[in-house]
Amino acid sequence: MTPSEVPQPVVASTYPDDLRGLVDSYLATLRFSAIPETAGIEEAMRYSLLAGGKRIRPVLALATARSLGMDPDAVLPAAGALELIHTYSLIHDDLPAMDDDALRRGRPTSHVVYGENVAILAGDGLFAEAVRLFCEQQDGNPPAVLSALAELLAAIGVDGMVGGQYIDVTTERTAVSAAPGGREARPAEPVVPEAAGPQADFLRRLHALKTGRLIAASVGVVLALRALGEPETIPYRRFAEELGVLFQIVDDILDVTGSDEELGKPHGSDERHGKLTYVSLFGLDEARKLAAESHRKAHDALAAVDGDPRDLSQITDFIYTRQS
Amino acid sequence: MTPSEVPQPVVASTYPDDLRGLVDSYLATLRFSAIPETAGIEEAMRYSLLAGGKRIRPVLALATARSLGMDPDAVLPAAGALELIHTYSLIHDDLPAMDDDALRRGRPTSHVVYGENVAILAGDGLFAEAVRLFCEQQDGNPPAVLSALAELLAAIGVDGMVGGQYIDVTTERTAVSAAPGGREARPAEPVVPEAAGPQADFLRRLHALKTGRLIAASVGVVLALRALGEPETIPYRRFAEELGVLFQIVDDILDVTGSDEELGKPHGSDERHGKLTYVSLFGLDEARKLAAESHRKAHDALAAVDGDPRDLSQITDFIYTRQS
Repeated sequence: MTPSEVPQPVVASTYPDDLRGLVDSYLATLRFSAIPETAGIEEAMRYSLLAGGKRIRPVLALATARSLGMDPDAVLPAAGALELIHTYSLIHDDLPAMDDDALRRGRPTSHVVYGENVAILAGDGLFAEAVRLFCEQQDGNPPAVLSALAELLAAIGVDGMVGGQYIDVTTERTAVSAAPGGREARPAEPVVPEAAGPQADFLRRLHALKTGRLIAASVGVVLALRALGEPETIPYRRFAEELGVLFQIVDDILDVTGSDEELGKPHGSDERHGKLTYVSLFGLDEARKLAAESHRKAHDALAAVDGDPRDLSQITDFIYTRQS
Repeated sequence: MTPSEVPQPVVASTYPDDLRGLVDSYLATLRFSAIPETAGIEEAMRYSLLAGGKRIRPVLALATARSLGMDPDAVLPAAGALELIHTYSLIHDDLPAMDDDALRRGRPTSHVVYGENVAILAGDGLFAEAVRLFCEQQDGNPPAVLSALAELLAAIGVDGMVGGQYIDVTTERTAVSAAPGGREARPAEPVVPEAAGPQADFLRRLHALKTGRLIAASVGVVLALRALGEPETIPYRRFAEELGVLFQIVDDILDVTGSDEELGKPHGSDERHGKLTYVSLFGLDEARKLAAESHRKAHDALAAVDGDPRDLSQITDFIYTRQS
């Protein structure tokens, strides 16, 4: 297949902006400090939390609620908790001891603005306040809230996000050569011609933990709050898992093809960090094919859900066609 | 009052070693990783979690349960969660960007052994697994578990432990001069003769957040799990709050008077970090008087509880007389 035959995203990208508006308004109301001595840490937390972004995780939660016939407002605490946790993970990932990134969403990262010590604590504080917020998710019945919370924590613990980040920071630079200089220096041919083999398995495992499980949990916690029967949840869970895969493939592609302005940070940072990505492993064209295939699978899963997954469908297309 | 008149701890120190044994056995059984790729982060977490120590927080939880006529075994998940959270906070506090401590309990700290990146993630992982464990505290009724969890999270969030640590790392070296060289260089007279004034208020606030609230929550979560009526909880809560104060005063005293071997880390580290402590603010003799007064108040509170606070009484004496 030549590059011109590689499928490119052509879907018109829309996004459930009403749900995003709900999330943004809700996040802006959150306060964590009631005493003057801790106002500074709240400021650091809000600096990162209110830096914008598409709010994909909480919007997914609200979209899942609406698909199930629930009032999206009813799951706002859980949705907010998802975004607080995502933000905590970004702050810690950006630290000098981790990815050492100075820019995020076009703004200096937390440790650049507030210092490493406050950035570590801002992450810790967002994590604590996220769980606290989730406990206030009292519209569900308490056993359902506990079960949803346990699902969320499993997604961000050792066999979830934290473990994925651990694998990421401790894995040696891969055998795939990464020449300096960005996309021009990329090999035109896929390094590994097939989406199989131990490196591909490793890559899928890494991303399933690092980003996939929290994205899947953004759907999963609402299923748990609704206390749906197992059979009804299966299509939603298949969708959510595939969406995590799609998200990561597109993320890896954008790191190569995106502009610094669009990304809000320097492109090519995966390559500079010597990271194993869908692009470094399969090449850009093959990665695009994998994204198209994943996009199709996510829609197939959605077609089987019991409910009205209109917003979830929009989010899927948005994730596939996004430029940042 | 001359130094010879200053009250010294004379209580015979015992400790509820059966409860501590329960905690140690339980913690040793905990596993967090089910896949080979994350075995390394589990190892780092267990390195710090199983480094010994008196397990004061989980033992307090079990002692509270026994005082209330509950089976201590029934609250082991919640108690374990308290120790995981305490351990996470120690790992993060020891980081180079924070207190930069290389020794803890006589062993190299997490970042010395595993590197800063893994140490940050080991702390994050312990935090996540702690909450997950707490969610498994199903012996209580679910609303009580949620309420206990919310109490725990409030104790370690922005207006709790994280906020206290924020105040600690961002507060400028105090006006109290700290000469190098350890206890010989200490002023013999209290710098501030009375336990009052803005610095004393600040010190109490700092410690109430940084260490006091988690110690108080070690009692509080069990009260919440038991779903006791408000009036019954008051003496327990008064006791728990006072115990946090006692713990910190003794901690500050030991940092000056303890030997490196007893403490498992170099003594005098508060002074080297220019920290405001009960000793730097009041002088050693006055700090000892404050400890004696706090010890008495804690026992007074215990005398009013409805239950059998034998273990809690032992813990109180132990905290007062401990040498490390």
